[in-house]
Amino acid sequence: MGKIILTGDRPTGKLHVGHYVGSLKRRVELQNSGEFDDIFIMIADAQALTDNADNPAKIRDNIMEVALDYLSVGIDPAKSNIFVQSAVTELTELTFYYMNLVTVSRLQRNPTVKSEIQMRNFETSIPTGFFTYPISQASDITAFKATTVPVGEDQMPMLEQTREIVHKFNSVYGETLVEPQILLPDNKACLRLPGIDGKAKMSKSLGNCIYISEDEKEVKKKVMSMFTDPDHIRIEDPGKIEGNTVFTYLDAFSNEGHFAEYLPEYANLDELKAHYQRGGLGDVKVKKFLNNVIQEELSPIRARRKEYEKDIEGVYEILKKGTEVAQERAAQTLSEVKHAMKIDYFEDPEFLSEQIKKYK
Amino acid sequence: MGKIILTGDRPTGKLHVGHYVGSLKRRVELQNSGEFDDIFIMIADAQALTDNADNPAKIRDNIMEVALDYLSVGIDPAKSNIFVQSAVTELTELTFYYMNLVTVSRLQRNPTVKSEIQMRNFETSIPTGFFTYPISQASDITAFKATTVPVGEDQMPMLEQTREIVHKFNSVYGETLVEPQILLPDNKACLRLPGIDGKAKMSKSLGNCIYISEDEKEVKKKVMSMFTDPDHIRIEDPGKIEGNTVFTYLDAFSNEGHFAEYLPEYANLDELKAHYQRGGLGDVKVKKFLNNVIQEELSPIRARRKEYEKDIEGVYEILKKGTEVAQERAAQTLSEVKHAMKIDYFEDPEFLSEQIKKYK
Repeated sequence: MGKIILTGDRPTGKLHVGHYVGSLKRRVELQNSGEFDDIFIMIADAQALTDNADNPAKIRDNIMEVALDYLSVGIDPAKSNIFVQSAVTELTELTFYYMNLVTVSRLQRNPTVKSEIQMRNFETSIPTGFFTYPISQASDITAFKATTVPVGEDQMPMLEQTREIVHKFNSVYGETLVEPQILLPDNKACLRLPGIDGKAKMSKSLGNCIYISEDEKEVKKKVMSMFTDPDHIRIEDPGKIEGNTVFTYLDAFSNEGHFAEYLPEYANLDELKAHYQRGGLGDVKVKKFLNNVIQEELSPIRARRKEYEKDIEGVYEILKKGTEVAQERAAQTLSEVKHAMKIDYFEDPEFLSEQIKKYK
Repeated sequence: MGKIILTGDRPTGKLHVGHYVGSLKRRVELQNSGEFDDIFIMIADAQALTDNADNPAKIRDNIMEVALDYLSVGIDPAKSNIFVQSAVTELTELTFYYMNLVTVSRLQRNPTVKSEIQMRNFETSIPTGFFTYPISQASDITAFKATTVPVGEDQMPMLEQTREIVHKFNSVYGETLVEPQILLPDNKACLRLPGIDGKAKMSKSLGNCIYISEDEKEVKKKVMSMFTDPDHIRIEDPGKIEGNTVFTYLDAFSNEGHFAEYLPEYANLDELKAHYQRGGLGDVKVKKFLNNVIQEELSPIRARRKEYEKDIEGVYEILKKGTEVAQERAAQTLSEVKHAMKIDYFEDPEFLSEQIKKYK
């Protein structure tokens, strides 16, 4: 059996550099590694609707944005199937049947759901669709028989829930579903990039994101306004690295090649950090370096995006094609699931012959 | 707009006389009244699985039983669409999106679900699919744009939940769904027939049901063993009517014609009851009368069943055809639902033109 990846994003806005270092960059590497037989990348509009039911226009508006982001970072439709979740209707049917295998109290104990409920201030009025989305995720993963799910550590409980459903399904109905493995990021700094204001989370409403599609001028403005060490007032003051957004971004983005090219006085990031900590290194110099590093990373992405934006019809066709492939695959799994559950009465010739025998 | 009925049963066993007087008989009357444009009768296997996930074979075994019961009581496939719920996959998709419109706490307050949870001893380990089944019922009802749902009073909270979902959907996404009305039984005695042992609920495991497909001898044996008034020991003792199963069944089944034919000493049930209450009327006499009444009702049903049992392939075709009709109708509603939600990107030509305009 091959190695299959399932991953994706909720289309609630353009993707930002946090998504880029946290998952997109890795995704492209995995895609190009040649190690995977199939890669499914889901634009999770149905999941996004679970807490945006009142605002489907927002989701609709961001389908194409996310598709453009994917293509511009290097997702290659010849190697990866980009698809739209809501158009793969089989996923809702899998969710429906998996819901019988998970208790309400099990969902209530899910730490990811717990913390997201808090984050969204839902408390007593959680939409049922949001509450049950770990089950929906299990459908997304198992529909494609994914072996590998590259996500952050915070998604471990979600993967655990999927594995439980696979176990339960296979033990009740017979071996049918594939148990997925989590693939954690290898760079700690990429786990979660803070906003440019130093806040833990990048969020559109806080205006603290750098988007991967943003133009050069805007990116520079944002980098130059980044939160650093508030006690680092004069250049000669010793500075702090911890909680200093500029250095967190450098951890995620920079390598020795960048130093050789843009800041040859330092061999690597450790030397730069040491100088900053002992004093004598100004924020502006570090920010300019970070700007160079980020621009180098984003500039080919920006160029690719411009090309794709000229051919929206082509991007639409890529989505449509990817969705067709995904649907075919999910339909195959669903048919196996319904056969295992013995509820495929009209497809299973056994059903009719059983019945004829019974009433003879 | 026409008048449309949606109704059905969980295929967890053969149907019994409680189903017959509680809903099936009425259903046939409604079918033959000519007042309804469409009638959809659902064999609710997917709903039955929500609390029988471990035992899908039981559900599978009873699909044909329930279909035979329907046809034998007089459901006419030329007038009513009998269909299998799990084969109308659109229903799960509607459920998925309706789940975003109902909060978890709203489900927890549903009195029908509350009491069923108690009845099934689920308590802390309620399957999520069972917990959310009021939402699934809303899909069943709205998928067919049902205007009329003939159910017992105990189902009022379920209908209320459906109406709330319709309101919410229409107010968020625009007028799309039809608000159904409940149609309560007109005969109080038919609301819930007790078991032959006097227990409130007929249940296969208690062995206290009379099945509508049972043979004459078996029915007679059950009627003659029915629970009456335990204090009515000698014929001359005064007897109680309340809680006396034989009289509860007579309330549900007998009419004045039956008296003229089988017990002409009494003009009607009131006279019979009065005699029993003042003493001097033996249980056996009343039971024999009830047996005549029930046999008269069940005998043509039995005959029709025998005919259908000889043609299981024909019954299968009826189910298949009814399911195709139901699926077509549900697909139409689903497409309206997804269009209203603006998530029909690949069907809606507007989507592509919007996007082309946006990136111009």
